Amino acid sequence: MYNFRTDLASERRDIYRKANKLENEVEGIESEQEEINENIRIERVKILDENGEKAIGKPKGSYITLDIKKLRIAQDEDIEASANALANELRKIIDAHIDKQGEVLVVGLGNSYVTPDSLGPKVINEIEVTRHVIKYLPQYVKEGTRMISAISPGVLGTTGIETVEIIKGIVDNIHPKLVIVIDALASRSIERISSTVQLSDTGIVPGAGVGNTRSEISVNTLGVPVVALGIPTVVETAVLVNDCLDLFIEKLQQEAKSNDYLNKLKEEDNYEEIKEALVPKDYNLIVTPKEIDDLIENMSQIVASGINQSL
Amino acid sequence: MYNFRTDLASERRDIYRKANKLENEVEGIESEQEEINENIRIERVKILDENGEKAIGKPKGSYITLDIKKLRIAQDEDIEASANALANELRKIIDAHIDKQGEVLVVGLGNSYVTPDSLGPKVINEIEVTRHVIKYLPQYVKEGTRMISAISPGVLGTTGIETVEIIKGIVDNIHPKLVIVIDALASRSIERISSTVQLSDTGIVPGAGVGNTRSEISVNTLGVPVVALGIPTVVETAVLVNDCLDLFIEKLQQEAKSNDYLNKLKEEDNYEEIKEALVPKDYNLIVTPKEIDDLIENMSQIVASGINQSL
Amino acid sequence: MYNFRTDLASERRDIYRKANKLENEVEGIESEQEEINENIRIERVKILDENGEKAIGKPKGSYITLDIKKLRIAQDEDIEASANALANELRKIIDAHIDKQGEVLVVGLGNSYVTPDSLGPKVINEIEVTRHVIKYLPQYVKEGTRMISAISPGVLGTTGIETVEIIKGIVDNIHPKLVIVIDALASRSIERISSTVQLSDTGIVPGAGVGNTRSEISVNTLGVPVVALGIPTVVETAVLVNDCLDLFIEKLQQEAKSNDYLNKLKEEDNYEEIKEALVPKDYNLIVTPKEIDDLIENMSQIVASGINQSL
Amino acid sequence: MYNFRTDLASERRDIYRKANKLENEVEGIESEQEEINENIRIERVKILDENGEKAIGKPKGSYITLDIKKLRIAQDEDIEASANALANELRKIIDAHIDKQGEVLVVGLGNSYVTPDSLGPKVINEIEVTRHVIKYLPQYVKEGTRMISAISPGVLGTTGIETVEIIKGIVDNIHPKLVIVIDALASRSIERISSTVQLSDTGIVPGAGVGNTRSEISVNTLGVPVVALGIPTVVETAVLVNDCLDLFIEKLQQEAKSNDYLNKLKEEDNYEEIKEALVPKDYNLIVTPKEIDDLIENMSQIVASGINQSL
Repeated sequence: MYNFRTDLASERRDIYRKANKLENEVEGIESEQEEINENIRIERVKILDENGEKAIGKPKGSYITLDIKKLRIAQDEDIEASANALANELRKIIDAHIDKQGEVLVVGLGNSYVTPDSLGPKVINEIEVTRHVIKYLPQYVKEGTRMISAISPGVLGTTGIETVEIIKGIVDNIHPKLVIVIDALASRSIERISSTVQLSDTGIVPGAGVGNTRSEISVNTLGVPVVALGIPTVVETAVLVNDCLDLFIEKLQQEAKSNDYLNKLKEEDNYEEIKEALVPKDYNLIVTPKEIDDLIENMSQIVASGINQSL
Repeated sequence: MYNFRTDLASERRDIYRKANKLENEVEGIESEQEEINENIRIERVKILDENGEKAIGKPKGSYITLDIKKLRIAQDEDIEASANALANELRKIIDAHIDKQGEVLVVGLGNSYVTPDSLGPKVINEIEVTRHVIKYLPQYVKEGTRMISAISPGVLGTTGIETVEIIKGIVDNIHPKLVIVIDALASRSIERISSTVQLSDTGIVPGAGVGNTRSEISVNTLGVPVVALGIPTVVETAVLVNDCLDLFIEKLQQEAKSNDYLNKLKEEDNYEEIKEALVPKDYNLIVTPKEIDDLIENMSQIVASGINQSL
Repeated sequence: MYNFRTDLASERRDIYRKANKLENEVEGIESEQEEINENIRIERVKILDENGEKAIGKPKGSYITLDIKKLRIAQDEDIEASANALANELRKIIDAHIDKQGEVLVVGLGNSYVTPDSLGPKVINEIEVTRHVIKYLPQYVKEGTRMISAISPGVLGTTGIETVEIIKGIVDNIHPKLVIVIDALASRSIERISSTVQLSDTGIVPGAGVGNTRSEISVNTLGVPVVALGIPTVVETAVLVNDCLDLFIEKLQQEAKSNDYLNKLKEEDNYEEIKEALVPKDYNLIVTPKEIDDLIENMSQIVASGINQSL
Repeated sequence: MYNFRTDLASERRDIYRKANKLENEVEGIESEQEEINENIRIERVKILDENGEKAIGKPKGSYITLDIKKLRIAQDEDIEASANALANELRKIIDAHIDKQGEVLVVGLGNSYVTPDSLGPKVINEIEVTRHVIKYLPQYVKEGTRMISAISPGVLGTTGIETVEIIKGIVDNIHPKLVIVIDALASRSIERISSTVQLSDTGIVPGAGVGNTRSEISVNTLGVPVVALGIPTVVETAVLVNDCLDLFIEKLQQEAKSNDYLNKLKEEDNYEEIKEALVPKDYNLIVTPKEIDDLIENMSQIVASGINQSL
């Protein structure tokens, strides 16, 4: 398998096609793109079988990427359009797994006291939960209303408990039919940071992006399908430098100041080498845009509204 | 049983003794008081047997009240002295139930987005958890270190799940030997508001004070001993009015403006009647002091430091 | 002059009429009411001359009260309707003093770290300021755009400076034609708390309601007209008790348990006596509803949107 | 003059000496270093005359840099030691300009709603102001107490008013003898970010680091001496890349994979070229460490305590 260095199925498919000089779609994979408007774009990738799995190293399932440009200065209508687009994608994924009344548990990973990690808890606070009303005051809800519950379990560093252990405990106790997990994650590219939502129905490994390996949250561990919404909110310095080095060399090339070695550097992925150079000096900071408060605010509105609409 | 209208074992004992004109302690009950300094006072009540249980309507166990005057303007030394006093009481209660290495789960009830209800989540954020370090990096901790984990499960209104269901799920999964529950609750007296910590080893019913009956969190539901820390942070208007009516009539008496009927009113507990008068007009607000942000900040430091020291 | 114990011109007018058994409007005063919808009501009182001033003890000018029921659970459409209603009233008042291009400075009093006092700073954060754009990038704004600036000067307790000194310094430096001041204030009635906006074009004395006498913010001190938006967010316990005592006695009357003295108590305003009874025991807390975070959030949306629309 | 690309007098002095191959101190400059402990280091640079001014392009005055390693995980004792060190330096600078009773105004620049920019407002909230007590309740303070006031004026983007206009208005109204300004600024080096305090008695130009040129805040504009405390909390991506490129090339050199052109690149400052490469793609983000909430919290404690002690 390639060292893809990206979680995005669509990016992995591109890398695979380029490396194998394929004109057409990879066998075992289907994909499509859609432009909602000039600022919102959707890519849908489906891995259909073992061929697709093997090619890009991800399990069978649906992978959808929603890109929103200029999120920080998004107006109400952009936020609404993004939420609607997210709701549509989410609805299709959920409907593929459970029926219209199937109970859903929404889980918001993250730490509400750390701004770039506060997206999950913020979204949970806006989810329209119904489970308690249906259970205790059924007269107040329309028949057929879906049971929805929501929890923000905290992070390993402040709970001392694996997130999956907490969720597993709750799932075993209340028996939802499907779990939606929201996770702020590390971006593998400067372009994706705080402007992308990644949906998939194959679950996630929280914190994978920043080196905290914790157990998988998926149908394998929970026993019910897990729809993951991953939103990149931070990025490693080595990723920034790797992305920017290419641009810098490109500029040198334009000015005829580059050379063979630099040209070769540009063709390669230098992330690992850069990381090795930065780590000993404690330079490999995890960083987030200065405007992270506004980005989280806007993104949590989009995600909360998208989930509420889709359920 | 009397309508005690207070959760405090010490206050119930006083009411029982007065009503029964007892000179000595109630049978089946032991109690003592201690002044730590001019601002900090402790009362300890132990219900020993069924006689005690029947007299004041609370299960066998230890009930400790820590009163801190002038908490809002408390200086660092007052906060430290209060935390030390709390740690001492907590340590005795915990040691009475489990050994020094017995694993403990700390649970902070409440909603971090509602200031008067944010104490639990705030405290959880400051608990020094060790469970994950002992499990994954045992070389970094001294042998014999107690496993500590912490969770802030949210509230029924935003999760849709009974708090006890969430805690039960986690307890069944990670098997602590004892649970500590922190709860911001409604005060039954204007004097206690935001200046009292109530400890007991008999568990609690969250939200009981403000009319949200939710299931008990205790050894009965969780299967392990539950130490409860209750901190009154809000009060019903009817409670305020009932307390203040007495002071007002007293003033009228001093000015010889009272009469037999008012004198009788003062002797009685008019809470229920006042409540009935206020509810139809939506006047029975739950209120909190204007300075609640500072009170919660200071109290969460005391409780977090008290728990950390005691464990 | 009567001891009105209310800042609301409309309430003072009612008291004056009742006391003087007037059938018609007080001489020198005009007033009208309007129901926007079942939850929103407006009262407009104009004091026209010295007769009006003398009758109700307030300076000549416009006094408008906007009442919003059920603000805590207000939906988006209620918030929008309230903001529109506020914008209409505000526009009329502003237009009566300056022309459409006249520069406006918006001042948000209060302390962003004290929830019930954070309304002013929250609103300022949402005001669409234009002054710097017009000054430095005039090509980006339509001709004729009004210059708007906004400041949140803090409170005497954390600045050490009279608020009026700060505002005066800024006004003398940037020369706006009109100042709008937003102030969270103490309510004189349990019904008004966190559900009323009081507009007037006669300025305000900040903190008057809770016993901090600070200098007037008005045309007298600033040299330009001052439109004040006062929103009651806290209430003294003595006010609560006084309001509730009446309801309690009313209930006793209905049950034929009252007596002449109580009946008389009910007719009188017992606020001062109650306050005197509570103060020595430190019972006269300033309190705020438990839901203050949501109330401030909703109210700041209404006020910010109302101001932005009107300007 | 060189393109120093750093605001730190000590760094400029180093660059000047290297460029001019000086063995000794630059003429017109005095400097010294001190290690407080293994984590805290101080550098003091004094520019004595025009020679010094011309050499490093900064006005005559004192420039002090306090470096604190591992600030994010700093314990209480580290924070206290840092605050003490800051207080000592600050006291010397203040005493050089005004006497022990000279009134001081503390100004906290920044926006409390943007985490990396919230340092100034946070510090202001912790300053022990005395001006109002001395003015209105002189009996409560010891004779000879210094008048201290504090303000957080907001930022141009939310006020529409130049910060210096606001401060000027207040200074003209209350007449302090000295102004202390706290500013979160852009770092010119990855090492300094969120771990350095820069003190000087020559004032500052707020926002200079991130391209918002606003007017100078100094004795020239305010008429009284201005002591500036600058704390780098954000950094441009181009700065990160420039710093990291050197490390990367160094690693290539060690692996004998570099070449003459790369070696030359390493010797040069490529910041401007990198910036030109990044800007067209919107890649030149301003970023901040993921842990910015904790860093701001710890740094605001150090700065507030340092100022309070020194006054």
